[in-house]
Amino acid sequence: MRTVNDLKVGESASFTKTVTEADIVLFAGISGDFNPAHVDAEAAKDSIFGQRIAHGMLSASFISAVLGTKLPGPGAIYISQELKFRKPVYIGDTITATATVTEVDVERNRVVLDTVATNQEGEEVIAGVAKLMPPKEKKAND
Amino acid sequence: MRTVNDLKVGESASFTKTVTEADIVLFAGISGDFNPAHVDAEAAKDSIFGQRIAHGMLSASFISAVLGTKLPGPGAIYISQELKFRKPVYIGDTITATATVTEVDVERNRVVLDTVATNQEGEEVIAGVAKLMPPKEKKAND
Amino acid sequence: MRTVNDLKVGESASFTKTVTEADIVLFAGISGDFNPAHVDAEAAKDSIFGQRIAHGMLSASFISAVLGTKLPGPGAIYISQELKFRKPVYIGDTITATATVTEVDVERNRVVLDTVATNQEGEEVIAGVAKLMPPKEKKAND
Amino acid sequence: MRTVNDLKVGESASFTKTVTEADIVLFAGISGDFNPAHVDAEAAKDSIFGQRIAHGMLSASFISAVLGTKLPGPGAIYISQELKFRKPVYIGDTITATATVTEVDVERNRVVLDTVATNQEGEEVIAGVAKLMPPKEKKAND
Repeated sequence: MRTVNDLKVGESASFTKTVTEADIVLFAGISGDFNPAHVDAEAAKDSIFGQRIAHGMLSASFISAVLGTKLPGPGAIYISQELKFRKPVYIGDTITATATVTEVDVERNRVVLDTVATNQEGEEVIAGVAKLMPPKEKKAND
Repeated sequence: MRTVNDLKVGESASFTKTVTEADIVLFAGISGDFNPAHVDAEAAKDSIFGQRIAHGMLSASFISAVLGTKLPGPGAIYISQELKFRKPVYIGDTITATATVTEVDVERNRVVLDTVATNQEGEEVIAGVAKLMPPKEKKAND
Repeated sequence: MRTVNDLKVGESASFTKTVTEADIVLFAGISGDFNPAHVDAEAAKDSIFGQRIAHGMLSASFISAVLGTKLPGPGAIYISQELKFRKPVYIGDTITATATVTEVDVERNRVVLDTVATNQEGEEVIAGVAKLMPPKEKKAND
Repeated sequence: MRTVNDLKVGESASFTKTVTEADIVLFAGISGDFNPAHVDAEAAKDSIFGQRIAHGMLSASFISAVLGTKLPGPGAIYISQELKFRKPVYIGDTITATATVTEVDVERNRVVLDTVATNQEGEEVIAGVAKLMPPKEKKAND
C-alpha cells in the first residue's frame, strides 16, 4: 500500500484490455444499460456510428482498474472522477487506460491524477481527472 | 427517440438495482479492477470499511443505464460525466440512480442532467453531472 | 405499476437484443442446457442447422423481459406462457420480442397477450400467448 | 442420439439445480428482464412475495436442460412448450425439472412430454407440456 508520501508527480501506470462483445453483453447485464447502441446490432447499423459501441462506463472502468490496482493502488479511496467521452469504442478495440499523477497534497492526503483511455490507434477515447485519498501510513505498531 | 426539443428542465427518471456479490465479481472480471477492497474479503475486513465494497464505477453504471435507456434515452451521445463518490456501497445495498434535467440548450443540442445514486437509506452514494447530445430530429424524408 | 384497468386491447410493447455467443455461453451456464446444438460448434456443423443455435428459452426470455418491464410491467404475476418455436436463432441474429394485449378481463384481473419474437428479417422465431395477473389497484390508504 | 423409435411412454429424466442470487443476476443480464421483482430487494420486500423471486423463465430453462441433454436429448428439435407458473421460486430454492414421455408418434416423428419443475418441498412451481421432433434415424451408410 502506497501512502501519499510515496507518490510523485509525473508517475504513471496503465492497464490495457481488448473490448469484446462478451464484455459489452456482461456490462449491459450488470448495469441494466440496454441502450440499443450497445445491444441491438440492427439499430446500431442505422446510428451515427454505424455499429454497436461499448458503454462509455466500460472504458471508464479500465481507468478505475489502474487507480485501484496500480496507482495509487489498494487502500486508496476514490473521491471523484471526471470523464469526457471523446470517441466511440467499438468491439475489438484495444483500450489502454493510463493514470498520471499531477498533484500530491500531503497536507490534505489527496492525490490528483490525469486519466486517459486511448484506443489501438492512440486516439483518446476518454479524458479526465481522478482524485483519491491514499491510505494512511501504517504505524509501526499496527 | 427524444430530441432536445422534447426535453424539459425538471424531468427525471430512475433505475433501481440491488448490488449483489455476483455483480461485483462480474464487474471485476470485465473491468480488470481487482482491487482487494472489492474481491478480497479478508483484506476488506481490515480496511476502513470493514467489508468488501462495490466498485464506484458499478454504481456509476446505473446512472449510465438511466441516461441510455430512459432520459434522454436511446440515440443520445454521452459527452461527459462528473462523479463524486460520497459513500461506499456494500453487498446487498439497493441503489437508485436518478437523472434530472437541469439545462436544455436547443441551440447547441445539449442537455445537462443532475445525476445521483442513493442507497436504500436515501443516502447519496454518488453525486454528479452528466452532459449529453440528444439525437437530431428525424426529418420526414429520412 | 399498471393495473388491469390501465390496460387496453391492442396495446403493444417491444424489446430488441442481438443474440451473441456470450449470451449462449451464459445461458448454458445458468440453465444447465449444454445441448451440443448450443455449445458444440463441431457437432453443430453436422446438424440440420449447420451451426450452433441459441436456446429457444433465451429468445423466450426476451418475451419475459417485455412482460416484466413494459407491458403489463412491474407488479404483474406471470400465470402462463405458451411457446411455439418456429425457426432457429443463430449467433448474430437480432431478436425483437413483442407483446400485444388481446384480452383484458377486469372481473378476474387477468390480461392475455399475444407474444412473438421475430428476427432481423421479420421472420417469426417464436409465437405464443402469455397470461398474467396485473397488480391490484393501490388503495388510498395503502 | 435417440430417435422416435427409442422413446417409450412413461420414461422420465430430471435435472436439479439450486437457484442462486448469481443465477438471477445473470438471467436478468442476458434477458434484459430487470423487473424489480427480480433485481430490487427493497421493492420486492413490499411485493406480494415479500422478497425477490427468480424469473419464471429461469426455472423453465431447467426443463429445456432436461429435454436438450437427456430426454429426448441431443438432436431433438423443440417444437413447443407450454408453461404454467404455479408458485414463486426464491433465492436458495432447489429446483428439479422432470420430463416424462406421454406420447410417441412414430408416424409424424413427434414426442410429447409432461414437464414439471418442483422445489425442495416437492411443490410444483411449473407445470407444462413439451413437444419435440426427435432426430431422424441415422442410416447405416451415413
